[in-house]
Amino acid sequence: MADGGALEGALTRNEEGIQGAVGVLKQQFGERFQTGQSIREQHGHTTTWIANQMPDGVVFAQSTAEVSEIIKVCASYKVPVIAFGTGTSLEGHVNAPAGGISIDLSQMDKVLEVNAGDLDCRVQPGVTREALNTHLRDQGLFFPIDPGANASLGGMTATRASGTNAVRYGTMKDNVLSVEAVMADGKVIRTASRARKSSAGYDLTRLLVGSEGTLGIITEITLRLQGIPEAMSAARCSFPSVEAASKTVMAVIQYGLPVARIELLDSMVVRALNNYSGLHLPEGPLLLLEFHGSEAGVREQAETFGLLAEEEGASGFQATATTEERNKLWQARHDAYWAMLALRPGCKAVTTDVCVPISRLAEAVTTAQAKAEALDLFAPIVGHAGDGNFHASLLIDMEDAAELERAREFVSWLNDMAISMDGTCTGEHGIGQGKRPYLVKELGADTVSVMGAIKQALDPDNIMNPGKILPE
Amino acid sequence: MADGGALEGALTRNEEGIQGAVGVLKQQFGERFQTGQSIREQHGHTTTWIANQMPDGVVFAQSTAEVSEIIKVCASYKVPVIAFGTGTSLEGHVNAPAGGISIDLSQMDKVLEVNAGDLDCRVQPGVTREALNTHLRDQGLFFPIDPGANASLGGMTATRASGTNAVRYGTMKDNVLSVEAVMADGKVIRTASRARKSSAGYDLTRLLVGSEGTLGIITEITLRLQGIPEAMSAARCSFPSVEAASKTVMAVIQYGLPVARIELLDSMVVRALNNYSGLHLPEGPLLLLEFHGSEAGVREQAETFGLLAEEEGASGFQATATTEERNKLWQARHDAYWAMLALRPGCKAVTTDVCVPISRLAEAVTTAQAKAEALDLFAPIVGHAGDGNFHASLLIDMEDAAELERAREFVSWLNDMAISMDGTCTGEHGIGQGKRPYLVKELGADTVSVMGAIKQALDPDNIMNPGKILPE
Repeated sequence: MADGGALEGALTRNEEGIQGAVGVLKQQFGERFQTGQSIREQHGHTTTWIANQMPDGVVFAQSTAEVSEIIKVCASYKVPVIAFGTGTSLEGHVNAPAGGISIDLSQMDKVLEVNAGDLDCRVQPGVTREALNTHLRDQGLFFPIDPGANASLGGMTATRASGTNAVRYGTMKDNVLSVEAVMADGKVIRTASRARKSSAGYDLTRLLVGSEGTLGIITEITLRLQGIPEAMSAARCSFPSVEAASKTVMAVIQYGLPVARIELLDSMVVRALNNYSGLHLPEGPLLLLEFHGSEAGVREQAETFGLLAEEEGASGFQATATTEERNKLWQARHDAYWAMLALRPGCKAVTTDVCVPISRLAEAVTTAQAKAEALDLFAPIVGHAGDGNFHASLLIDMEDAAELERAREFVSWLNDMAISMDGTCTGEHGIGQGKRPYLVKELGADTVSVMGAIKQALDPDNIMNPGKILPE
Repeated sequence: MADGGALEGALTRNEEGIQGAVGVLKQQFGERFQTGQSIREQHGHTTTWIANQMPDGVVFAQSTAEVSEIIKVCASYKVPVIAFGTGTSLEGHVNAPAGGISIDLSQMDKVLEVNAGDLDCRVQPGVTREALNTHLRDQGLFFPIDPGANASLGGMTATRASGTNAVRYGTMKDNVLSVEAVMADGKVIRTASRARKSSAGYDLTRLLVGSEGTLGIITEITLRLQGIPEAMSAARCSFPSVEAASKTVMAVIQYGLPVARIELLDSMVVRALNNYSGLHLPEGPLLLLEFHGSEAGVREQAETFGLLAEEEGASGFQATATTEERNKLWQARHDAYWAMLALRPGCKAVTTDVCVPISRLAEAVTTAQAKAEALDLFAPIVGHAGDGNFHASLLIDMEDAAELERAREFVSWLNDMAISMDGTCTGEHGIGQGKRPYLVKELGADTVSVMGAIKQALDPDNIMNPGKILPE
């Protein structure tokens, strides 16, 4: 097995190659190739505390053939290529540590095909999840994966995104049937047919889902869709402790209750929401749920949930049936980010994500709360509890170097803790630059060297989003 | 990108290397290394019409460390290594076209860990699906994937198996959380943590699921489990045509009815079951269903299904609630193989599997029936209709060379048809040797060359189950 040797060592700028590629692309793409400072900064920018590393130019691609052309130019000059969707990733995925060319895919935003009879569709990578759902609504269909931001489906595929619905509908890995991708040599591949299942060869679909642009750039995605359920309802419930809330989550999962969403908000988040949204929720850990099914089915699910929660000492159980009530409840959840920011005006919220077996969720969350307190940090926690996945949003005064240092310590400690519980350093945000030190800790050097061997085989010159996922 | 060059050309026996490896393994494993003709034949044997190609020796491994040791010996002599579970694969997966060593994993049959709170377990590869379910029953848990045979979980993982429950619970790709595997250099890797979801690096779990022993040998599997539902019921329903039955299946899927099983049996299969099991089913296309949920939930599901079926002119709708009735119905389905064989005593049943988008299912099945008739072949069809996956079981007089030739023509035609419908040449049986010609037709040479590059990177000497999946 190759040892991934070419990936070792710090990345260096290929100054001459970059100049060459910039020249050719300027000629080929004219106005659609931009090298202005602000556009380049925007394409290195990510929702993170990692420093901005700008690309040398940005091409606004409009077709698969153009993406292939751009990659061929970059390959011939051995210049990095970084895909850009909406720039909402959280771990420095779109940064250009050795410069290079950013391919902005936002103009490839067409829904190419909807096969209502098969519950699937084919989209370009620049279509956002909200745009897709708007497109689908009239046909009674929806796409369930909902990361916080209105991300592009290309970016969501590349980072193996998920969100609040994953407990019921899975993550991007479960909802992508096939991708078209341009590989490092410019060749265009399609990874699978439109069949709902297949045993035909290596699962290149799942290899590209979550590869963060390091193996190829995704130019089309075939997605599984869902019918909009006959009925939806929501519920909320307060608990005396995170442990009681987590035990309820475990009971729900073991019971097989098909909840569509089951979100955990810790006391600090609840307090923030009360302040921000003028709510009067009891200031303790809260579970927020959504049920999908038939009218009778969602009623029964809510009732069963109520009983399971009661056994753990829950209070304030409230089921909602009207769309308005349900939207209000979930609007509050969606406002959590802003509500948390308002807890400490002037601060930046840095969100980190880990995922543990759900039997360890209570311990993981309470230990994290205690650690944050010991480090004198604000770190409100929200979790996709049904998956054991939670986020701590550190509210940091970026001017305070000591606090910043303590925040780094917390993130490092949190990742190590999740790994020690046989969990993962990232449930849904991806590795990018920020989580690279933890990948080897989590999976071991031999496993990561297999990843390195695949990377080297498919991208021998390391031009596809270098400096991401794999250790230097 | 490497062009998979080392994989080109016909496989040849490395006579000297084989002698060397056999000598070393004999010394190391004593009685647990066998070279007798009948054992070797049994380990080349598969449930297929492909000729038996025996390995040169069979090692009965008892631990991951032993598997690693065996692979290191084979690697040093550049000798093929073929994993063997129960030998129930259908496309020649365990054949040894260039000889080599079969590693029999049936003695690695321990359930290592059950985490009831997390709904997961860790097993050795030799545990069969029935043994696992027996082990789990007392804890109120089950593992849903059910290929026809009582296959080993290692084999099921390696071939990305599924079965009748896939419409509800997915395939092996959806139910494997992590694997431990020994790679071609003898290194042992674990692909993921026990978290229910992760975005940590390349999805090596899914790369190994379905890799058919060509990238590594799976020595442990962490599986997702399900709670045994509160209630289960079954139903059956006859239809005037395959089209009417298929339309009902589409309606069920679009409605989002969470059926656990929805199987299509064509008229010929129904006739065979009537004869074999003394049933009195109407001789037309039949749908056989199972519902999982709460008492009220399964009742509602059966009622809703009844209404959807009625709209397509169904008759003889019969829902069963008692376990006995349900078991009788599904026993008949499980007996279908024997029932079909009894249609033409003395013949061999050769089963081939394709999968199409469900909107094309009716057309695919009826065209296949017509083609079989035109070729004067018996080819009863059963399908996991909710996935668009169906099997034609050719009942062939193996002594009749002309009939055998027509059967080959049918299989080739069927695969081409599925591919032309944007379906796959195999929904659940895998590529093995039998489906290799269709992989390139389905996915294109560029896609398959990416698979070849991965194979070459991870197994440069092509010792891991050579001659499978990838074209020669």
